[in-house]
Amino acid sequence: MTHRNITCPAKNPAQKQQYIKKHSNALWLFGYHAVCAALQNPKRSVFRLLLSKETMQELPQNLIPENLHCEIVQKSDFDNILPKGVVHQGIAAYVSTLPEIHETDLIRSDKSVIIILDQVTDPHNVGAILRSAAAFNADGVVMTQKYAPDITGTLAKAASGALEIIPLVTTTNLARYMNTLKQHGYWCVGMDGKAENTLREMKLPRKIALIMGSEGYGLRRLTAQNCDFFAKLPISERIESLNVSNAAAIALYELKYKLTDL
Amino acid sequence: MTHRNITCPAKNPAQKQQYIKKHSNALWLFGYHAVCAALQNPKRSVFRLLLSKETMQELPQNLIPENLHCEIVQKSDFDNILPKGVVHQGIAAYVSTLPEIHETDLIRSDKSVIIILDQVTDPHNVGAILRSAAAFNADGVVMTQKYAPDITGTLAKAASGALEIIPLVTTTNLARYMNTLKQHGYWCVGMDGKAENTLREMKLPRKIALIMGSEGYGLRRLTAQNCDFFAKLPISERIESLNVSNAAAIALYELKYKLTDL
Repeated sequence: MTHRNITCPAKNPAQKQQYIKKHSNALWLFGYHAVCAALQNPKRSVFRLLLSKETMQELPQNLIPENLHCEIVQKSDFDNILPKGVVHQGIAAYVSTLPEIHETDLIRSDKSVIIILDQVTDPHNVGAILRSAAAFNADGVVMTQKYAPDITGTLAKAASGALEIIPLVTTTNLARYMNTLKQHGYWCVGMDGKAENTLREMKLPRKIALIMGSEGYGLRRLTAQNCDFFAKLPISERIESLNVSNAAAIALYELKYKLTDL
Repeated sequence: MTHRNITCPAKNPAQKQQYIKKHSNALWLFGYHAVCAALQNPKRSVFRLLLSKETMQELPQNLIPENLHCEIVQKSDFDNILPKGVVHQGIAAYVSTLPEIHETDLIRSDKSVIIILDQVTDPHNVGAILRSAAAFNADGVVMTQKYAPDITGTLAKAASGALEIIPLVTTTNLARYMNTLKQHGYWCVGMDGKAENTLREMKLPRKIALIMGSEGYGLRRLTAQNCDFFAKLPISERIESLNVSNAAAIALYELKYKLTDL
């Protein structure tokens, strides 16, 4: 297995800090799947890798980049470095952020699903949506610039490795991006509990932008205006809505079957 | 609207504390949907209701139990009372726990889905599963006694009101409970990524116990031994599994269609 990871060669702390400083925009990832996926992603540079004794024994040795000194640490070291109360499973890595991907890079010529999140702010939800996007082969997840979570270790943990697989893109102008997608043959489907038809009963084209609103407010007016169709899920009137990541998972599952049948 | 809520009539703090002490096992709920649903649940006693000025204006007045003194409070009062960092949306209520429901009370004579969680520990996941259970008309959610979350405000917030609608039951012996269900005509379907068939392609009976394992370990050996079938979801090999609440949402969605067609 060849690693293109840029690892930190410095052995003493001062050199190491200097080295890391050069690589700005680094972040801490934690959790077994999130870190293992990052170690396997050639687009990540790994500056530090912290392991508990137990996790060190579990971790396949070929995942550890050459020249990277693994640090075997105590529980308190994780607590000092990571946000309070997170479940790190005895593994954390200080890594470079991923190279930015342009929103138009997600566009495909045939059969495609792009998920658009209209002001979904919870990093756990966005992470879980990335995970479902990977599970059902979506081509990317797009967030608005404002009212979107930062790409942190918490989001990466919830994505359970999918942050390394599925492009997560920020758009400055969602309405314009939806129009660009339409020009490239996509149809914009807004998920909306008040829609007439369920996703399952709709006939859909082969290129879909699936738009999910925030849990509190749904789709914004301008976003809704730019949708070609609306679809709902067949939920009981006893409850107002599903959790947004649950709704996205169901929609992606349904689209997977629909687009396979096309 | 008639309220059977037992509200706290005491006006001074000392009386109030004494009154609440009598009603042991009280807990703090927070978040708009979670608290509004609790206020509408005749099985809850409401001891205190804390509101921000803004939420007070939004809250339908008929939801406030008669004789209950609403306390208009500051942000810092919420911070003092609730767990750190929670999103309370300016509303919290100190309420009685719900009366215990026996596991056999979930059993129905026809068309039924019961969800069984085999050591799912994250309260956010269990809450989201309750919400999906309400959305797709499941009859209840069953947890193991060990390795299950406490029923807290965090779980109730994630359930977004569904904790008041869907019975959440704890079983001391999961294998025995599965056998009881089978004696009552249920078929136990274990969700397992290694299953041969997808849930959609399987022919299923009208009474289903859907068993979800923990994310890390899946179904335990004894739980798996007691399953009649296994089913998987059609996920890509790029990812090991879905988030457990996302997987449960998809399975419940699929069963809703399958059982409607029967």
